[in-house]
Amino acid sequence: MNRLIREIRHNPLLWLLIFVPAVFAGEAVAPDAHTLLFVLSVLAIVPLAALLSHATESVSAKTGDTVGGLLNSTLGNLTELVIALAALRLGQYTLVKASIAGAIVGNSLFMLGASFLLGGLKYHVQEYNRMAARLQAGLLFLATVALLIPSAVASGEPGVQPVFVQRLSVGLSVLLMAAYALGLVFSLKTHPEFFRSAEHDQAGEEPWPMGLALGALAGVTVAVALVSEVFVESVQQAAEALGMTPAFVGFIVVALVGAAAEMASAFAGARKNRLDLSVGIGLGSAAQIALFVAPVLVLVSYVIGPAPMDLQFWPGAVVMILIATITASLVTTSGRSAWFVGVLVLMVYLIFALTLYMLPPRVS
Amino acid sequence: MNRLIREIRHNPLLWLLIFVPAVFAGEAVAPDAHTLLFVLSVLAIVPLAALLSHATESVSAKTGDTVGGLLNSTLGNLTELVIALAALRLGQYTLVKASIAGAIVGNSLFMLGASFLLGGLKYHVQEYNRMAARLQAGLLFLATVALLIPSAVASGEPGVQPVFVQRLSVGLSVLLMAAYALGLVFSLKTHPEFFRSAEHDQAGEEPWPMGLALGALAGVTVAVALVSEVFVESVQQAAEALGMTPAFVGFIVVALVGAAAEMASAFAGARKNRLDLSVGIGLGSAAQIALFVAPVLVLVSYVIGPAPMDLQFWPGAVVMILIATITASLVTTSGRSAWFVGVLVLMVYLIFALTLYMLPPRVS
Amino acid sequence: MNRLIREIRHNPLLWLLIFVPAVFAGEAVAPDAHTLLFVLSVLAIVPLAALLSHATESVSAKTGDTVGGLLNSTLGNLTELVIALAALRLGQYTLVKASIAGAIVGNSLFMLGASFLLGGLKYHVQEYNRMAARLQAGLLFLATVALLIPSAVASGEPGVQPVFVQRLSVGLSVLLMAAYALGLVFSLKTHPEFFRSAEHDQAGEEPWPMGLALGALAGVTVAVALVSEVFVESVQQAAEALGMTPAFVGFIVVALVGAAAEMASAFAGARKNRLDLSVGIGLGSAAQIALFVAPVLVLVSYVIGPAPMDLQFWPGAVVMILIATITASLVTTSGRSAWFVGVLVLMVYLIFALTLYMLPPRVS
Repeated sequence: MNRLIREIRHNPLLWLLIFVPAVFAGEAVAPDAHTLLFVLSVLAIVPLAALLSHATESVSAKTGDTVGGLLNSTLGNLTELVIALAALRLGQYTLVKASIAGAIVGNSLFMLGASFLLGGLKYHVQEYNRMAARLQAGLLFLATVALLIPSAVASGEPGVQPVFVQRLSVGLSVLLMAAYALGLVFSLKTHPEFFRSAEHDQAGEEPWPMGLALGALAGVTVAVALVSEVFVESVQQAAEALGMTPAFVGFIVVALVGAAAEMASAFAGARKNRLDLSVGIGLGSAAQIALFVAPVLVLVSYVIGPAPMDLQFWPGAVVMILIATITASLVTTSGRSAWFVGVLVLMVYLIFALTLYMLPPRVS
Repeated sequence: MNRLIREIRHNPLLWLLIFVPAVFAGEAVAPDAHTLLFVLSVLAIVPLAALLSHATESVSAKTGDTVGGLLNSTLGNLTELVIALAALRLGQYTLVKASIAGAIVGNSLFMLGASFLLGGLKYHVQEYNRMAARLQAGLLFLATVALLIPSAVASGEPGVQPVFVQRLSVGLSVLLMAAYALGLVFSLKTHPEFFRSAEHDQAGEEPWPMGLALGALAGVTVAVALVSEVFVESVQQAAEALGMTPAFVGFIVVALVGAAAEMASAFAGARKNRLDLSVGIGLGSAAQIALFVAPVLVLVSYVIGPAPMDLQFWPGAVVMILIATITASLVTTSGRSAWFVGVLVLMVYLIFALTLYMLPPRVS
Repeated sequence: MNRLIREIRHNPLLWLLIFVPAVFAGEAVAPDAHTLLFVLSVLAIVPLAALLSHATESVSAKTGDTVGGLLNSTLGNLTELVIALAALRLGQYTLVKASIAGAIVGNSLFMLGASFLLGGLKYHVQEYNRMAARLQAGLLFLATVALLIPSAVASGEPGVQPVFVQRLSVGLSVLLMAAYALGLVFSLKTHPEFFRSAEHDQAGEEPWPMGLALGALAGVTVAVALVSEVFVESVQQAAEALGMTPAFVGFIVVALVGAAAEMASAFAGARKNRLDLSVGIGLGSAAQIALFVAPVLVLVSYVIGPAPMDLQFWPGAVVMILIATITASLVTTSGRSAWFVGVLVLMVYLIFALTLYMLPPRVS
């Protein structure tokens, strides 16, 4: 605990932690000052993400990059899950779906591309173990097929009832969760040797002891979740006040802020020439949201939602998920990266962001 | 001949051959007992497929895996061709197209995925010559483009007359058959060294002499064709009685039963660590149906059908063929396989099967 | 200059240069003889293309294949840019878009496929540096996403106004040009060692001295541009007289003739076992049109056009560009080629050409 406080004192970024109580104070005093609460909550999430990054790296330093990456995405995606559950309870299915699609696209394009670019600006060429990337890309591809097929089969068919889409969504959810579980068996039990890191560069900050690291992981994740809820409640009105479209808010802003913690870890990994960690966090997180978080939300909607949620997404979102999956597959086949690969991936994300930003409000 | 009888006596599976005469007896006695005839014909096809498998392996043991694989798909697809010709004569174009699409998808997903899974459960990692896979995947890609372009170009255009689609289908059929013929020249004449097997494991059942093997190949193929016809006549009503949709029957049931013989060979190859054989049968068969069987049916429809058949497929089927081709390309680029690769490929197939199973009857 | 004349005397192909003045004479005497002017201008472009090929090879012999290829596409695409600017001034946006789409598809399929085939008929297997191909394929993929997303997002949405598409087109144009510029920085400044040729075969015609080569490059390019303008003015009516549809003319004929100069260089490279040059010209040219020529036309249309031009293409053209990009990516991953790879790529192009040739006139 002393160690944690010492670290906070030496790292100016962590001084922003003052905004965590500020968010809750702000919410108690002025619950309708949406733009203020929005800014406060974003400022509070940044240092929490940095702490989470250090805690995760401390655990991963002892367990290997792949397990560390898995841990990281699991805990990072708890945030997304908590946010989505809150929105689900209120029946805001459009926001839930937009944030799921945005999280998949943001993790596989923005996080991956920025990692490649940040790493590539420091190192001429970076190598990483592409086996983990191929596994995650394969799982993502499967999830994309599951999201694509219902609308492809039903398109232009007037005979398709909503009940078909709902029953199919439950079936697809079970298939996706089974594939995800089998993927974990494959990577952790039967073929772990495929997923060893290509290189290790253990330099960097001194890792915390296991106990402190695990405690910080748990506590900080809870704090992120609490702040994120304030963020979600304020984001819609704040965005309107700032002139952003709802599609842009759900797909881009919620997804980026929700993944802030994982991004800090991924970018730190890239700057330390440990792209295995970055790619594992980015694609692993995207795969986990597509094959675990989304199916869980479909199944849980039968219990806590006002009505069942299905897996039928807005066609534009399906196309973006498809393009993101193909992009991630193409750039990770070689296991090598340079700065321009990051530029290409980020440009695809920028095309999406620009399109959603300019989209007239009624569409989506 | 003695040898054939001896083998039948020692292999309990072959005792099912009793169902071959039972099918014909059943058809003569009770031609309207569709569900009974359906069950009998499936039970009769299984041992015939096993015999065919052994005969083909005997030939391929002397001619190399690639030629053996080619032989196998040629003879296996005779079944599909005979079934389709019968349906064509009756003008059942929807069933013909569904079984063509289902055979392409079933061969490139179910057969390939199950081979990878069955082989992977026995061997930790399997290697195979990926050149043959890349050739077949390339041909499949070409066929997918040929099926995709007419609907993409004509979509939402009210000015497109059916006569355009029919003339285009004839032109595309000629192009596809030319590409298929040139592919045979490439793999058998000018660059055969690319298609040698990566490894040979000649253990297993003792091969038959060439004469017996060729005779059994021919005779058993005819028997499969005869039984399959009873199967096709009974399947539609039997399926309704069993609660299956027409889309599911044409795409999944007919395609799987029609490919039973090749599947037995492909799975046996995978269990003997000869994945070259399995991949050659699966993708080779899919390519042959797309670039040879389908074009032949289009051209022959001008002679024997009540009206010309075109190459315009139901959009859902085109999307499934496209996804199957992309999946097959992605998983065969490395030339290595483990059990989870099979799971991923099978999951894509399961998503298709589940969707078609749940689809309301009026759609497709 | 003596050297240039000596070369013309020894090369019968160059005797066709007589058609260059014949085109201008014909235009002055009989400006309405469209079919005659069409034939004359095609005959005049062929020898100019041959001269351009030799001049470019002379420069590239001293600067390396990649820079040579870059130079070649830059100068070759000047033709396309000049043609498109003329059409833009007259407000013929459909022709401009068709020729852009056709040039992307023609360069990445016809030029690449014919190079693979011509080279493969002479050499059993050819190798080339795939890094340049991967960079260009990545840029092409980005451009395809930029052309695909607006229509995917806006499809079936009645709320999308044309003003959204126009503003988005300007934004996308700026993004594409930035990506193109960063790609040049990557390939020429920070990572040039990735783009060295795999092999060099400096045999062939004696290179011209740098001064003559550069002078010929400039002069012949201007002549090509002038003749091409006559060609464009006559092609539409000539095509109608010859029974071709407008879609076929814009997409296939204009694009092929416009790229004649680059094709001569690419095919010569393939026949000399310098596939690096061929692939660099084909994909580099396609990428340059998609990421530089098209965006420039969008921006310039605000100045010289009767109305702004946008980046929304006919859906059939978007599908063809998408398929062309995927095909180019798939065939260039290995860095090896044989004749059948060329056949496959050409077949995809033939499917497009056949479809457009048969398309009823009202569509497109």
